[in-house]
Amino acid sequence: MTIRITRSEMYEKFFSILQKNGFNRNKAEILANIFTDNSIDGVYTHGVNRFARFILYVNEKCIDINGEPELKHSTGAFEQWDGNLGAGPLNALHSTNRSIELSRQFGIGCVGLANTNHWMRGGTYGGHAAKNGCAFIGWTNTLALMPTWNAINPKLGNNPIVFASPYNDEAIVLDMAMSQFSVGKLETGKRRNQELSHYGGYDENGTMTKDAAAILKTKRILPMGLWKGAGLALLIDILATVFSSGLSTEEINKFKYEHSLSQVFISIDLSRLGNASTIKQTINNIIADYKTSIPEFENAEILYPGERVLNTRNENRKNGIPVDEEIWNEIQNL
Amino acid sequence: MTIRITRSEMYEKFFSILQKNGFNRNKAEILANIFTDNSIDGVYTHGVNRFARFILYVNEKCIDINGEPELKHSTGAFEQWDGNLGAGPLNALHSTNRSIELSRQFGIGCVGLANTNHWMRGGTYGGHAAKNGCAFIGWTNTLALMPTWNAINPKLGNNPIVFASPYNDEAIVLDMAMSQFSVGKLETGKRRNQELSHYGGYDENGTMTKDAAAILKTKRILPMGLWKGAGLALLIDILATVFSSGLSTEEINKFKYEHSLSQVFISIDLSRLGNASTIKQTINNIIADYKTSIPEFENAEILYPGERVLNTRNENRKNGIPVDEEIWNEIQNL
Repeated sequence: MTIRITRSEMYEKFFSILQKNGFNRNKAEILANIFTDNSIDGVYTHGVNRFARFILYVNEKCIDINGEPELKHSTGAFEQWDGNLGAGPLNALHSTNRSIELSRQFGIGCVGLANTNHWMRGGTYGGHAAKNGCAFIGWTNTLALMPTWNAINPKLGNNPIVFASPYNDEAIVLDMAMSQFSVGKLETGKRRNQELSHYGGYDENGTMTKDAAAILKTKRILPMGLWKGAGLALLIDILATVFSSGLSTEEINKFKYEHSLSQVFISIDLSRLGNASTIKQTINNIIADYKTSIPEFENAEILYPGERVLNTRNENRKNGIPVDEEIWNEIQNL
Repeated sequence: MTIRITRSEMYEKFFSILQKNGFNRNKAEILANIFTDNSIDGVYTHGVNRFARFILYVNEKCIDINGEPELKHSTGAFEQWDGNLGAGPLNALHSTNRSIELSRQFGIGCVGLANTNHWMRGGTYGGHAAKNGCAFIGWTNTLALMPTWNAINPKLGNNPIVFASPYNDEAIVLDMAMSQFSVGKLETGKRRNQELSHYGGYDENGTMTKDAAAILKTKRILPMGLWKGAGLALLIDILATVFSSGLSTEEINKFKYEHSLSQVFISIDLSRLGNASTIKQTINNIIADYKTSIPEFENAEILYPGERVLNTRNENRKNGIPVDEEIWNEIQNL
């Protein structure tokens, strides 16, 4: 059964559990806000539905509650940091802020972050940079869960990449994993016995299928864009590993729990590239033209990346955040 | 009929036509090399098959034979250049080199290039940066040729993006347009009455299809990764336009011929990020693991992005470059 939880109730619950698990007040506040905001925005898989696993990783010492990001190497506009296994969202937010600071100074700034943890929702950092007037490109590697093109065993991470741009007071944020559908989506499809909207992988006969259960059985998840997403997943891993001097998907894959990830954060300070109102108008013009697209059927939505989140955010603020009762009960016991 | 042309014969022919059309010796050499190398590498659509159109664009004054890239604005690691409608490959090569120089100084360097022309094959620049020890990310906007998700009229460019990394003496180069199949591929499918290997767009009933002729009729080309490629195409256009202070897809679309494009070139100097042999070993380890993928059927190839090009290159160097006789005859008359 789905219940509705208010923002403040969810935040307070997360905050108190985080403090109980040893995070100091400041860290617990930031983390509780990120987990709650991801849930408000409808990204439940990286919000409320993932919170118990986050605490498990703390207990398993994959996440070090005292881990702080540490500068290892600087070349000016590019810095390499060690995340020291601190909480993923804290390290990622710190790295985003550092890349923004570098972009204020050099126009563009890049942070390579080694030995960090799952950043939850990449869009958090793209949106944060955009609201600070920056364009943003960032990515992370993950454990292997997807075969490459023409192959049957998982060698590639889902390796999300984020592209973001300011847009008025909001942000255009593309937060894109390399599989066409997330494992979470496949699991939901299986549980509800619902077909995927498009091919999501292969069945036991090696045929592309919309049957989520069949895909979870073969573990042959389809890369987005077929060979293209497979290729991009490989390059994301290479660049994340080399930029951060961190671990690659292959190395991460040897752990029992996914940790010690490698991530990249690139910000570009748009205020240094020209007149602010001209840049704002340019982006508005592009979106205005985009919005004149003719829908394929009545009521088909023509959305820019990140736009759907705004509707969900408004709804969840008004009606509370929908949570599976079982998941919420589990959180009560943490 | 397909004939085979040696590298030197093709190069000399291109070089003399370029000189006849007013390019100075140096520019004609670089351009002839790029068009010939793209053909050697099997990217005929952006090599020999595109050469006549390049000359047409010169005659139509979309390409200015005397146009030189000009620095408009610098913020340190980020520079904005105006391409002044010079030949696309010359402007792109210059911008790549400039981004490499900036990365030597700052660790990362970015060039936004306005008012340029088609760069032909983006992989040229990714490969060039990689062979100079840099990782590379670059992209270009184009005219609109693809509807966004849920829409039926073209609003998005094919907007290729390039990711590249050094790899021993070669390069790993992903050169990826935002449609699942290029228009050239659809045209070939139609001409040969051959089904596409996967869905490439929609037919008149709004059903996804592998029928290239049906797709060319509706012009509903499928974005790679469905809504993901559509979203990325939009962001590529926004970032290219804003980074370069240039024109967006919407504005380019008003011209009779595609010109005045906006492009971005980002290089990261890997030699500044750590020990060269460690970095080389890291990349080798990732590729070695990738190559242990189990093929889905006997002889299925497990290739990294850009690897297929190497085989084609060797074959074409040995046997000559395959060219449609009609296309070669047309070039003789330029």
